[in-house]
Amino acid sequence: MFEAAELGREVSKEAYAAEVAELRFALLQAQYRLRDADFPVVLMLSGDDRFGCNETLNVLHEWLDARLLETHAFDAPTDEERERPEFWRYWRVLPPRGRIGLYMGAWTLRAVRDRLGKRIPKAAFERALERMVRFEKMLVDDGALVLKFWLHVPKRELRRRLDRAAKHPEKAWWVEEVDRRLHDSYEKAMATVERALRKTSTGEAPWTIVEATDPHWRNLAVGRALLQALERRLAEPPPERSVTAASAAAAATSDPYTILDTVDLSSKLDKAEYDARFERALSRLKVRTLEAKARGITSLIVLEGSDAAGKGSVIRRLTRAMNAQLYRIVQIAAPSAEEKARHYLWRFWIRLPRAGHVVVFDRSWYGRVLVERVEGFATEPEWRRAYSEINEFEEQLWEGGCLLLKFWLHVDPDEQLRRFEERERTPFKQYKITEEDYRNRAKRPEYEIAANEMIARTSTEFAPWHLVPSNDKRRARIQVLETYADALGLKLEG
Amino acid sequence: MFEAAELGREVSKEAYAAEVAELRFALLQAQYRLRDADFPVVLMLSGDDRFGCNETLNVLHEWLDARLLETHAFDAPTDEERERPEFWRYWRVLPPRGRIGLYMGAWTLRAVRDRLGKRIPKAAFERALERMVRFEKMLVDDGALVLKFWLHVPKRELRRRLDRAAKHPEKAWWVEEVDRRLHDSYEKAMATVERALRKTSTGEAPWTIVEATDPHWRNLAVGRALLQALERRLAEPPPERSVTAASAAAAATSDPYTILDTVDLSSKLDKAEYDARFERALSRLKVRTLEAKARGITSLIVLEGSDAAGKGSVIRRLTRAMNAQLYRIVQIAAPSAEEKARHYLWRFWIRLPRAGHVVVFDRSWYGRVLVERVEGFATEPEWRRAYSEINEFEEQLWEGGCLLLKFWLHVDPDEQLRRFEERERTPFKQYKITEEDYRNRAKRPEYEIAANEMIARTSTEFAPWHLVPSNDKRRARIQVLETYADALGLKLEG
Repeated sequence: MFEAAELGREVSKEAYAAEVAELRFALLQAQYRLRDADFPVVLMLSGDDRFGCNETLNVLHEWLDARLLETHAFDAPTDEERERPEFWRYWRVLPPRGRIGLYMGAWTLRAVRDRLGKRIPKAAFERALERMVRFEKMLVDDGALVLKFWLHVPKRELRRRLDRAAKHPEKAWWVEEVDRRLHDSYEKAMATVERALRKTSTGEAPWTIVEATDPHWRNLAVGRALLQALERRLAEPPPERSVTAASAAAAATSDPYTILDTVDLSSKLDKAEYDARFERALSRLKVRTLEAKARGITSLIVLEGSDAAGKGSVIRRLTRAMNAQLYRIVQIAAPSAEEKARHYLWRFWIRLPRAGHVVVFDRSWYGRVLVERVEGFATEPEWRRAYSEINEFEEQLWEGGCLLLKFWLHVDPDEQLRRFEERERTPFKQYKITEEDYRNRAKRPEYEIAANEMIARTSTEFAPWHLVPSNDKRRARIQVLETYADALGLKLEG
Repeated sequence: MFEAAELGREVSKEAYAAEVAELRFALLQAQYRLRDADFPVVLMLSGDDRFGCNETLNVLHEWLDARLLETHAFDAPTDEERERPEFWRYWRVLPPRGRIGLYMGAWTLRAVRDRLGKRIPKAAFERALERMVRFEKMLVDDGALVLKFWLHVPKRELRRRLDRAAKHPEKAWWVEEVDRRLHDSYEKAMATVERALRKTSTGEAPWTIVEATDPHWRNLAVGRALLQALERRLAEPPPERSVTAASAAAAATSDPYTILDTVDLSSKLDKAEYDARFERALSRLKVRTLEAKARGITSLIVLEGSDAAGKGSVIRRLTRAMNAQLYRIVQIAAPSAEEKARHYLWRFWIRLPRAGHVVVFDRSWYGRVLVERVEGFATEPEWRRAYSEINEFEEQLWEGGCLLLKFWLHVDPDEQLRRFEERERTPFKQYKITEEDYRNRAKRPEYEIAANEMIARTSTEFAPWHLVPSNDKRRARIQVLETYADALGLKLEG
């Protein structure tokens, strides 16, 4: 794989100076056009040539407008990072559309190092590589231009540099133990690197291997490739985003019998039984959430359901079961400008809590395949791929040790209408009901089909959906509280 | 001070139930009205009654709509928090307008504990108290409703609780070592608390001391006070914000001879001298910024000046002097919706870097007293008080060990016009020049008066302004680079 990057290519000082002048100008122009474009650039600069990466990074900052460039180096994770899934640190600094986010080393290099240092077994390394592929694909699907550079030096060049450093230690500030270790186990290290690059070089996000022996060649190779990719992408017409009418129609004509029709809405709970079970669930949750806090086990609770299904009433009971220092209720509405400028999952990633805490999502990332699908805010390709993106997200939460519980609160149309009318009659609840609720209600068949598909496609072994019959509010509250108490109990035992 | 909170007041179960029903309803109503209001609520819940604080917090979450409430408890600072000035952790979670941010314990309790634990000397304690007063005043001036509750139990009640806990250890999960310590040095602790409360009870943000012996009384006292404050505030007309015309006029008629007129714009640097000094500054900065990284010394560099004064050209040289992993360039433009919903300093606080890093602000918080003043985006009272708010901010940076350098790049009107015209002629620079630049230029006298006042009022011993004659670009670049290299050298020695 590295043969083509060991050819000894060079660029003379004069040729370099001449080309750089033009390249800089063109790069800046492209960067300014990018500012008004509808996509971000994720630029990963990595390699076995640690020194070269650093130098090229500096050169890129000179060539580009550094004010529009966000560079992120990833040292040892901070404690806030360690308390979340591994990719949280990459998500939290995702560049907005119109900007370049430059990631130094980042996920690929980290996995390679972990593997070489024997901190992860082979199977975990393979899984990590697959995760990267899915992560990068997701960014690309969302419009990002993902560029990955691997800067490579042959063993003889590394040897030469180390020898020179040994002779002139005063100039060898850049040499670290890791460079010597790389030299000493060069063949083995390169085999691991090669596997990583091969597995993660995809059509959407291929690696560009750059011969880094000659700094001129190295800088030009990166600069040219960046320019070419930027210019090509800027010349493309913006992607079609107008399939929404068709997709809504497709949804409407599908089989209207859904999994939701199998929910038994008739069961009720009398007050005495409710009170007893409620108190019991409450006391179990009080104890268990405190223990989870002490042990750093995070809970994420997702509440979805049609309007007036009783999410608020469930939340009020959930909060009684926990110390208020432990939880946060996150209400999801239309995204802000900052949120719209990034992948739709960004606003959920950045809201992941510290270890041991609880977040209750009052609506969630599932908006993508519910309201955004039905109302046409997401195109059909967008919501179709969201199922696997969401599964991937949830798998990472699960692997990170989170307890994730998803509830669909279900009421039938008559009960929903009754609640709407009650809200209108109660002065105190009027703010809850608007014209839009009635408009949404008219689209109930489409929403049910969307919910049905969502449940089918995102009920996974690690995060199944819990269907909650909610015509009877007591029944709904008890099911959510008991399910949470049971699941947390299992988690604490496990 | 606590006599009035040791009267043994109680509320019967029946009276409590009756009042709570009404109180909850009214609180919710007020909270929903707050949603559309133009101010945030900063609610601090603190006290010597640790147990009571926790209980009341839970009750507030039950009474209010928890979805519109953000609660923040402050355990030991995370490493990301420790690397910034102490108040960063409070700033980063500042609630937006329309919301309630509930701070548990937070700054006051922390200072009291630090003092009681002898982690800070008396003088530092006094300074900390003064800092809180200024912080809270700043929030209030920005429109926040700041409410502070101190929950107090008399010594005999604390004794009773500890005795009961000793008898029934299975129910005593809430007792911690800190409670026993409080009992054993109760008088001394209360003297410190009293001093803290007295010093930080101000007209804008007074403490409400709540007798916490009886939980009913305690909860009602907090709930009532919150409701009353919210209702009163919601009933007030929104503050006048229309003094801008007057303030602009006042500025225009002031003495037009400013400190900027004293800047000697004639001095030039020839290329040979420039090159030599530039290389020297570069190599000093390279070494020193790396050392600062290793030692965790953060640099903040503020660049201000009229349009076309050459900030971009200085930035490009600064970036050549540093490893790109060390710095970030932050370009300040109009605030986003999230930023507008909070105090104007919020967006700068949250951009403070981790220890050892460098942030270059291309325009900064000084926008408040420059463009916002001249264009009338800030009212006269707003920009007038900004001087001391900014000094306070910078003092905290300085005390936190930051190196803060502020540069005013100055060009005369003729040179500015020449540069505007050059930009219009250069295809590559046309994006930099708009109608607005000419409009701003026409307001140059107002801008100069604003800059003059800014320099006079915010040149402090810990963060003086550096005036940079910038008609000659080489001269300007060298001065900035050398000033930074010198200052960082001193800091590293100090």
